[in-house]
Amino acid sequence: MSWINVTYHIRAARDQLDGIAHALALEQSVEVSAEVVTDRFVAENIMGRVAAVHPSDHGPHEVVIRLATATTGFDVAQTLNMLFGNSSLHAHVELVDVEFPPEFVARFSGPRHGIDGIRRRLQATRRPLTCAALKPQGLSSEALADLCYTLAINGVDVVKDDHGLADQSYSPFAKRVVACQRAIAKARRETGRACIYAPSLVGSPHALAAQAKIARDEGVGAILLAPALIGMPVFHELVAAHVDVPVIAHPAYAGAARVAPPLLLGKLFRWLGADAVIFPNFGGRFAYSREDCARIANNNRCDWAGYAPTLPIPAGGLTMDRVGELVGFYGPDVMLLIGGALLAPADRLAERTRSFVAAMEAAHAGSTAARDAALS
Amino acid sequence: MSWINVTYHIRAARDQLDGIAHALALEQSVEVSAEVVTDRFVAENIMGRVAAVHPSDHGPHEVVIRLATATTGFDVAQTLNMLFGNSSLHAHVELVDVEFPPEFVARFSGPRHGIDGIRRRLQATRRPLTCAALKPQGLSSEALADLCYTLAINGVDVVKDDHGLADQSYSPFAKRVVACQRAIAKARRETGRACIYAPSLVGSPHALAAQAKIARDEGVGAILLAPALIGMPVFHELVAAHVDVPVIAHPAYAGAARVAPPLLLGKLFRWLGADAVIFPNFGGRFAYSREDCARIANNNRCDWAGYAPTLPIPAGGLTMDRVGELVGFYGPDVMLLIGGALLAPADRLAERTRSFVAAMEAAHAGSTAARDAALS
Repeated sequence: MSWINVTYHIRAARDQLDGIAHALALEQSVEVSAEVVTDRFVAENIMGRVAAVHPSDHGPHEVVIRLATATTGFDVAQTLNMLFGNSSLHAHVELVDVEFPPEFVARFSGPRHGIDGIRRRLQATRRPLTCAALKPQGLSSEALADLCYTLAINGVDVVKDDHGLADQSYSPFAKRVVACQRAIAKARRETGRACIYAPSLVGSPHALAAQAKIARDEGVGAILLAPALIGMPVFHELVAAHVDVPVIAHPAYAGAARVAPPLLLGKLFRWLGADAVIFPNFGGRFAYSREDCARIANNNRCDWAGYAPTLPIPAGGLTMDRVGELVGFYGPDVMLLIGGALLAPADRLAERTRSFVAAMEAAHAGSTAARDAALS
Repeated sequence: MSWINVTYHIRAARDQLDGIAHALALEQSVEVSAEVVTDRFVAENIMGRVAAVHPSDHGPHEVVIRLATATTGFDVAQTLNMLFGNSSLHAHVELVDVEFPPEFVARFSGPRHGIDGIRRRLQATRRPLTCAALKPQGLSSEALADLCYTLAINGVDVVKDDHGLADQSYSPFAKRVVACQRAIAKARRETGRACIYAPSLVGSPHALAAQAKIARDEGVGAILLAPALIGMPVFHELVAAHVDVPVIAHPAYAGAARVAPPLLLGKLFRWLGADAVIFPNFGGRFAYSREDCARIANNNRCDWAGYAPTLPIPAGGLTMDRVGELVGFYGPDVMLLIGGALLAPADRLAERTRSFVAAMEAAHAGSTAARDAALS
């Protein structure tokens, strides 16, 4: 007998809060009113209960509900159902945090590589890491492979597909992955430097398994998946059954407004096995706050249930002039993804790529020196 | 060369609207600024464009974007990615409607049974239909089967699993489905009346396929799936490859606030093949408006792309005293789902079930008479 503690934010008048908390505990468990629960086993072991109600004078109230671990059946889809199935339809409710008991956590292995595994593959033990994206979609596989080569030979650690690259006529998955992996291997040979190409896999379970096989056969070093787009249960099953290399999670379709980003991108993606998570950085073209970004990175990397730490990848309109600031903010266990700003304007890509890599090294050296000075 | 028209609602100051519309067209297609798109094929055939901007003085502005059909690769996950991948992360953007061109629609067959197929299986050609739910979870398979029998023998058309029933220790999927299907078959034999048990399938693709096989082997008459929970691409693949009977879609985890409910529950679930869609009725315990419910039902049933009509199932705290009102509101092509109110208080279930069925017949007769009078 164990329980999952689930935290929600509630926007409602203070005098309705107790009633809403009680209704939430029922909605997310037995889904009938308490007087219908005449069965004693159900009343004692299955019915959700209110663990805490914290009213707030500014901002939303906080409510903690306890849900029986047994209701999850230790299944990903059913766990999401228990956490936020019907209540996701309530505009006044936001899912903000979850604490799984050891019995539950023991059934999920989390990231298989995590920060250490990614660093090992890149032969980069301490410094912050760099990432760039292949885009725009519509380019041929050959043109994308050329881009991939230019980015890699000029020092980027991970070159990922734009998440808009799927299995389209103008750059079919199989053709694109072969071409880009060949380009990255060429760059590796020529520089003697480790670098990784991460193709984007997208589709139904059947298509995903076929794409994973191609990626494996070609020897790619990581893959990119959008859990909210393909389905979180599929993400988890695919990672466990079909993928050996590190997995980078993308936030597309996560519409995280109703599930707090620090929970969804910070914790839930890690729970399901993401080795790295891309998220919208503050001050970029997405509106995540500085505090939320710090919480996402913290949830990715903190001690949690014995799970390997996940590598945070802030992204979304990053520009070169922010490298120093962001390395200072996130510390060295970070990978910065600069997408469009590396590619625009369309010339001098090699030069800009080298500047990105150099700026990261300088920022790291600077913040290490500052830390050493502070400690001495 | 064809284009998908996608409509968004934008909350922003009027003078920012044109810029936001332009950025949206790029974000949902090439994901770089326009000056980076030097390739002519990409600029002409792939890059999204603004089709219309409709400012509003009250409420959100409306923007219509055209996205190239080719970018979808005719894949469900990638289509969702194109419609709302990154923009789902923008709090000021809501996805509200989509118009697919014939080239696209021809690749998806929509509902296989729809309203007509469900009516045929229930031998109910004109009247509005009834639905009840097996709950609370935590009851044994035997207790759930007893409930199923009581509901069916007293005249309910479809008895569905509560969506909280998964593959849990206290009522494992295989055991529960065998027991409940046996109970419904017994009720059918004894009454000579068609009625259907719809088990809830939930899990990762592997588990879903195994559950679908059990359901098929036992001869169940319909199944319940929550597309947002299992993943919409999985829903579509499962329906096409593993399910012969009508499929009822459940809105759990749909968190529809960022995708307009009339689009998500009304149109997208239908596009993916839902024969019936459960949605939160107005005035119940979920906050959908009367207008949204009318739009959902309309999108379920309207002429669209040659797809079979989907059966709307309003639900969520429905009580017996609303049967007349709701049959009048939705008309006869509807199935009303009364869940908890049939089960509470815990006695006299048979009597309340018969009242539900009788109230539906009376409401139908009343509104038919009213219509006849109006026409004569």
